[in-house]
Amino acid sequence: MLGPGKADLLAGIRDTGSISAAGRAMSMSYKRAWSLVEEMNAAFGTPLVISSRGGAQGGGAHLTEAGEAVLSHYRTLEQRALAAGSEQIEAIAALLDDMSEGK
Amino acid sequence: MLGPGKADLLAGIRDTGSISAAGRAMSMSYKRAWSLVEEMNAAFGTPLVISSRGGAQGGGAHLTEAGEAVLSHYRTLEQRALAAGSEQIEAIAALLDDMSEGK
Repeated sequence: MLGPGKADLLAGIRDTGSISAAGRAMSMSYKRAWSLVEEMNAAFGTPLVISSRGGAQGGGAHLTEAGEAVLSHYRTLEQRALAAGSEQIEAIAALLDDMSEGK
Repeated sequence: MLGPGKADLLAGIRDTGSISAAGRAMSMSYKRAWSLVEEMNAAFGTPLVISSRGGAQGGGAHLTEAGEAVLSHYRTLEQRALAAGSEQIEAIAALLDDMSEGK
């Protein structure tokens, strides 16, 4: 329902004001970016992203209050998870390093 | 390089002694399960999984010491991340619940 890709897409929409620009910055097709936004809006039962297609300025998109809240909680979650798991991440990285050096 | 799917596959191989049985339990094709194992073995530069094809007992697979270590670190990482992020997970879940109830 929410993962790193969707969180980055929300952040991109917040920063660019556009679903297609946010998708492009992630090398994602227009169709894929819209599809992820629609999935999130449906999953939460209220829009996280509001978009207006067309119009004088060619449309645009922005995060709703719910969208901002979800993104903010997710970013805090990522930071806390990374901090809490730093020992294990280092241990796995050490196994990768040792082995790629043939130790 | 390592995520929930690959970790579950390692655990399945440890428990079943078979790459194909572990994949099947995850509704994964034989080809996909082998491909993930090969990816992990290549990424770590040493095998996490050793398999023997054919033979009297139809082959089998087991985790190496490195495979056991990687799986163990990953499971601890998951537990710590979940515990550290529990407030945020609850906050996101609360947004899901409130909205699906139309509040």
